[in-house]
Amino acid sequence: MSAYIRNCWYMAAWQEEVPEGGILSRVLLDKKWLIHRLENGDYAMLEDRCPHRFVPLSMGSKQGDVIRCGYHGLGFGPDGACMHNPFPEAPPAHVKAATMPVVARYRGLWFWPGDAALADPALIPDFAFLDKEEPVMQRGHMTMQGNYELVTDNLMDLSHAEFLHVETFGTNGSLFESGAQTVEVADDGAIWNMWDMTNARAPDWAKGSLPEGARVDQKLHMRWHAPASLALAIEMAQAGTDFSKPLVPPMLNPHIITPETQSSSHYFYDHEPNDEARALAMKVFTEEDEPMIEAAQEALGDQDFWDARPAILKTDAAAVRCRRKLMQMRKREAGGEG
Amino acid sequence: MSAYIRNCWYMAAWQEEVPEGGILSRVLLDKKWLIHRLENGDYAMLEDRCPHRFVPLSMGSKQGDVIRCGYHGLGFGPDGACMHNPFPEAPPAHVKAATMPVVARYRGLWFWPGDAALADPALIPDFAFLDKEEPVMQRGHMTMQGNYELVTDNLMDLSHAEFLHVETFGTNGSLFESGAQTVEVADDGAIWNMWDMTNARAPDWAKGSLPEGARVDQKLHMRWHAPASLALAIEMAQAGTDFSKPLVPPMLNPHIITPETQSSSHYFYDHEPNDEARALAMKVFTEEDEPMIEAAQEALGDQDFWDARPAILKTDAAAVRCRRKLMQMRKREAGGEG
Amino acid sequence: MSAYIRNCWYMAAWQEEVPEGGILSRVLLDKKWLIHRLENGDYAMLEDRCPHRFVPLSMGSKQGDVIRCGYHGLGFGPDGACMHNPFPEAPPAHVKAATMPVVARYRGLWFWPGDAALADPALIPDFAFLDKEEPVMQRGHMTMQGNYELVTDNLMDLSHAEFLHVETFGTNGSLFESGAQTVEVADDGAIWNMWDMTNARAPDWAKGSLPEGARVDQKLHMRWHAPASLALAIEMAQAGTDFSKPLVPPMLNPHIITPETQSSSHYFYDHEPNDEARALAMKVFTEEDEPMIEAAQEALGDQDFWDARPAILKTDAAAVRCRRKLMQMRKREAGGEG
Repeated sequence: MSAYIRNCWYMAAWQEEVPEGGILSRVLLDKKWLIHRLENGDYAMLEDRCPHRFVPLSMGSKQGDVIRCGYHGLGFGPDGACMHNPFPEAPPAHVKAATMPVVARYRGLWFWPGDAALADPALIPDFAFLDKEEPVMQRGHMTMQGNYELVTDNLMDLSHAEFLHVETFGTNGSLFESGAQTVEVADDGAIWNMWDMTNARAPDWAKGSLPEGARVDQKLHMRWHAPASLALAIEMAQAGTDFSKPLVPPMLNPHIITPETQSSSHYFYDHEPNDEARALAMKVFTEEDEPMIEAAQEALGDQDFWDARPAILKTDAAAVRCRRKLMQMRKREAGGEG
Repeated sequence: MSAYIRNCWYMAAWQEEVPEGGILSRVLLDKKWLIHRLENGDYAMLEDRCPHRFVPLSMGSKQGDVIRCGYHGLGFGPDGACMHNPFPEAPPAHVKAATMPVVARYRGLWFWPGDAALADPALIPDFAFLDKEEPVMQRGHMTMQGNYELVTDNLMDLSHAEFLHVETFGTNGSLFESGAQTVEVADDGAIWNMWDMTNARAPDWAKGSLPEGARVDQKLHMRWHAPASLALAIEMAQAGTDFSKPLVPPMLNPHIITPETQSSSHYFYDHEPNDEARALAMKVFTEEDEPMIEAAQEALGDQDFWDARPAILKTDAAAVRCRRKLMQMRKREAGGEG
Repeated sequence: MSAYIRNCWYMAAWQEEVPEGGILSRVLLDKKWLIHRLENGDYAMLEDRCPHRFVPLSMGSKQGDVIRCGYHGLGFGPDGACMHNPFPEAPPAHVKAATMPVVARYRGLWFWPGDAALADPALIPDFAFLDKEEPVMQRGHMTMQGNYELVTDNLMDLSHAEFLHVETFGTNGSLFESGAQTVEVADDGAIWNMWDMTNARAPDWAKGSLPEGARVDQKLHMRWHAPASLALAIEMAQAGTDFSKPLVPPMLNPHIITPETQSSSHYFYDHEPNDEARALAMKVFTEEDEPMIEAAQEALGDQDFWDARPAILKTDAAAVRCRRKLMQMRKREAGGEG
């Protein structure tokens, strides 16, 4: 039961990661794929493997909308058809590169690894906030050495911040004292894990902006869409003011995860466009979350998560619901009932 | 038939390897375990894997006798029970970390990976000589990239010293000329491999302490207890004096081997507490024995030792007896007759 | 169907690679073998693995025609028999190292991994041109991280030069414009892939040696013998002169491939004995061919070539014929009909 879900939109890259006039090669769901931008502004996605001798087409060159293999010179169009033969005769019609539907939306490139006839762009989860001009954000990509569901577990239970992110987020235990967890399933299939801290101790950095002894309300709301496209909303305000007196501007950030392999994940995020924000994001992701997720992956090895008999805590309620939903989707695709 | 023997004492570490107020993490028999010292002076040994999300508990912290996970803050007592929950409610009673019996003895820490009810400390092989105040010895630990039975083969046939340790021990062929090998099984189940060189050519370094032309007697006695806890006794004296005129003080040293994995071993040894003795031990272990043992392991790969059809020499008599005894123990544990 | 063909001559090394008075150790067909030169000028080839504890005999020493193990001192003669025991008693007669027939010919050392009774040196493919005194050539050896049949594919379709070797060979597309491919099977079982460019555009470097506007004829003839011993003949002359006016001396070079493992190959080649020629060969092999072959191997992984359903082009005619011949040989050895 570790197969990938096929009929689902995954994010492959930020649009700006595709080099102008060039090729982006990336391992997605265990296979190498390439993405390039067509002359009409659309994008094409081909398996990064020549059907002749299997070498990556990205070792070749882009000539207009055609990708030429660097080994024997066959050229492939956006639909995977062989369009160019270095010999005078016609390109061999039986030679075809695999392709996937790819859609540019919300500054990202989304692909559908399943039945192309079902690839309805309306099913891409709503990340319209990424299209906004303000605030200007810097987008980033990294890989984490852990299965995408382990990364999801991490994001769907932010109580870990109290241990893992003490240095970066300056937590003070208020989640444990004053936090209430709510799990909701939205009409669009999203699963929400919402931590609400009511009348909590104020963090040190906020005390200067508050009346003496004032406390705070805080929202820490994570939204998940299958397979692992998440968004995090954070708000903090003076307690009892119904968030009308925010201490920081409300934040909304993508945490979009795409499997690279069964044991590694692409992580798409953003941060404010300055060095300090970049350094903070790097510290949180690479020095705090990643070593822990990688350790979980290493401990799990090739074993199925449930076969390893994990202890389930109340705080896992949302994470477990996501895992169940994915299990149902996998079963349905495998032909079972789910 | 490569499973580990379970109902048996293995050495995990020298006591001084456990950091004061801290945690020692070590892979033993293919699993990560942690050891820490309790406030009452005893030791506790827990699987180094949180039962919640599998991450090493040693990535967390020790707070008194409780080990707190660094991911979501659960705390585990010496018996593996969850003693601490960061949320106000009681710790989840169903969450338990695995433990093993561990006993401090002979300056080492001994664990029993099998049925805890059978873990009788009286079964720990006698290394009382390690408790002595004199001579003061420096204990050491290294890992070798070879199965523990290949390391045992090495130790149970010291004729290899004539080839592998020429530079360090200055051998002169007297083992081949004047050596007699005796193999004995002792009442406590120990297997002894004894080389006795009688009236042998004296080594160059001893000639100054001997009458002109005098020869020497030498004992090279190795004792083995299952699974691979060995001790080496060496004596050398003027020939014909019944060891009443020793040329060096009698030596007795531990060579205690514990499987890290099926293809790597922990090696616990000691040497005199000076730089020269340390350098000599390092040269013998890391430059002479280890490359050969590692080469044997690499050649063997995943193949069973007997399936590889090794040629058996007379000098293998003791090593083969140890291998048979382990085979019987494994069969007995697997439910067969042995 | 990935087993090696056994009853076949493979090249192990150039004769000059065996150190004077020493031992060459090399992985061939997944196993370590050693080669050394005997006092009578012949060569011996033993499995580089002591039958006692499996360590490489090459970690020991050569003493005359006997190889002494560095672990316990057993010595093995050219026929693999144990000839030396460090103990006074006779060498153990049941202890024998594996051997293979090895023949020195054409400056190389050829081995036969199958039934020794069938190892007829007359079956070694004809590389007599390597014995010539003139021109003096420098022989070389490298390993490529690809299966030997992928390396063969590369050599049996030189149209790849137009893409991969543009920088080194200065190709100008004439193969596509003016090339005709002929595939022939010779009486000795050799498969020839012959590119003949007739009345082709002259390369820039040749224009100075030609009448204004003259064109060229070129031969690019590759000869293959199972399993993967190839030779390349190149000629270029003024067009229409029936090669009587050569622009460069005719070239004849070995490209002899021997499997190291299923995914890596030994490559035996030669070049003119000067730094420039050496640098050119290194660039062609390590910067142009090898990355592509390695990429094909990585893409293929453990999958069988045909199971990966490669697209077959007309230019693959010779390469496919070689693959079929090897398949027949494997089937015949496996007991089938082929």
